[in-house]
Amino acid sequence: MINNLIMRKPLILVTNDDGITAPGLRTLIHIMNSIGEVVVVAPDSPQSGMGHAITISDTLYCKREKIDDGPQKEYSISGTPADCVKFAIREILQKKPDLCVSGINHGANSSINVIYSGTMSAAVEAGIEGIKSIGFSLLDYSWNASFKSCEEYVKKICLYVLNNKSKLILNVNFPSKIKHYKGVKVCRQAKGYWQDNYDKRISPLGKEYYWLSGNFINQDDSEETDEWALENGYVSVVPINYDMTSYEDLVELKNSKLD
Amino acid sequence: MINNLIMRKPLILVTNDDGITAPGLRTLIHIMNSIGEVVVVAPDSPQSGMGHAITISDTLYCKREKIDDGPQKEYSISGTPADCVKFAIREILQKKPDLCVSGINHGANSSINVIYSGTMSAAVEAGIEGIKSIGFSLLDYSWNASFKSCEEYVKKICLYVLNNKSKLILNVNFPSKIKHYKGVKVCRQAKGYWQDNYDKRISPLGKEYYWLSGNFINQDDSEETDEWALENGYVSVVPINYDMTSYEDLVELKNSKLD
Repeated sequence: MINNLIMRKPLILVTNDDGITAPGLRTLIHIMNSIGEVVVVAPDSPQSGMGHAITISDTLYCKREKIDDGPQKEYSISGTPADCVKFAIREILQKKPDLCVSGINHGANSSINVIYSGTMSAAVEAGIEGIKSIGFSLLDYSWNASFKSCEEYVKKICLYVLNNKSKLILNVNFPSKIKHYKGVKVCRQAKGYWQDNYDKRISPLGKEYYWLSGNFINQDDSEETDEWALENGYVSVVPINYDMTSYEDLVELKNSKLD
Repeated sequence: MINNLIMRKPLILVTNDDGITAPGLRTLIHIMNSIGEVVVVAPDSPQSGMGHAITISDTLYCKREKIDDGPQKEYSISGTPADCVKFAIREILQKKPDLCVSGINHGANSSINVIYSGTMSAAVEAGIEGIKSIGFSLLDYSWNASFKSCEEYVKKICLYVLNNKSKLILNVNFPSKIKHYKGVKVCRQAKGYWQDNYDKRISPLGKEYYWLSGNFINQDDSEETDEWALENGYVSVVPINYDMTSYEDLVELKNSKLD
């Protein structure tokens, strides 16, 4: 049997949560152009921390874009990363792409951050639609972060997923400020949480308001986790699942008086 | 050992995603007042479909409220359900409550809806913070839905969770328009997705815009699922887990050439 992917270029949907002009997205587009036919559908403004939000109580706008050179087709959407994936499949592509990639995010999406992440919500949305998908994130929040060291690994991981039979959803994170990574480490999501702080301020009109900030607390020292991999110079790869059932608790509850 | 809960009333945080004036929230407050000391911290506007969004690029406002009678303390927040839980713990309660309840949502949060749900994101956020939590939803989107049949079950499930050793996170859904449910069914999240539609319209200024709508597709006919339970007149109870690692794919990937 001749592999379909040999016969034609794979169709790749590219999105992110930092918005269509983000350098991380531009890097990802550049790499994807070397693999397949690229369509970019990304938010028209930053959408960090949007989790798996979708726009159901407001209208959406779509605009054809041309941010920089290259063969890719580009569109911006006035919505969330999950909106971009839904809109791309239904209205722009009108079919399912072979792969959806999201990122490269300016900042970490390891451990519990997968829950808050707009980058990963796009990948998970594609997964729900039965599309192979990967979210890429670099542990550097700066707009001018260097994505150079990631490039080789991004391409390798995309080709692996494209050629794999399983409909994988991967959460890939890159340590920052490392020229040569030690390699890829397949791992699980580390247990962790954010210790939140609220910075209370007073507006010029005398009204109290708050800014959320916080510190990430890693509660997990296992070498099998993404946090360990990243601290030790590896690219972390966590396969993701959107069945949120706790099967451990399910067994306990089945034997309870609740049922 | 004397149980701490016998010595004092449990502290219960109540929130939702339909906003602080929603009848479903009012019902939940009423029931919780019969169990413990109640503090309400809810969004000041509807937040349906917000998934696990948090507000990190904008400011938050908090307002003391008194919507109706009862001993509960009430606050509204200009943010998402997950923001409400974070803000309540850090700024209002300044400690962790014994239980966090979210809802009763006007509309279903069964199957894949758990991912898009603001109601469930509040429960999951509490779970991440190590707090027992329950999201309640009625399969009726109308503002005037009757929550009467739910009341007995809401109380029973809350008391079960408060007295259980495990830090459970539960996703509880109630079928609509049934006077007497057949009972509680502990089950798993059904496999399903939304077949999206975009309704394209033209604004008075001639600009194209879109409304998202869609139909839920249940891909799972197992009797072990929440969709089956709800279709057959049971209250569905799915225990929830926020480790999104796919352990099945992890084993496969560990044996791959990627690692």
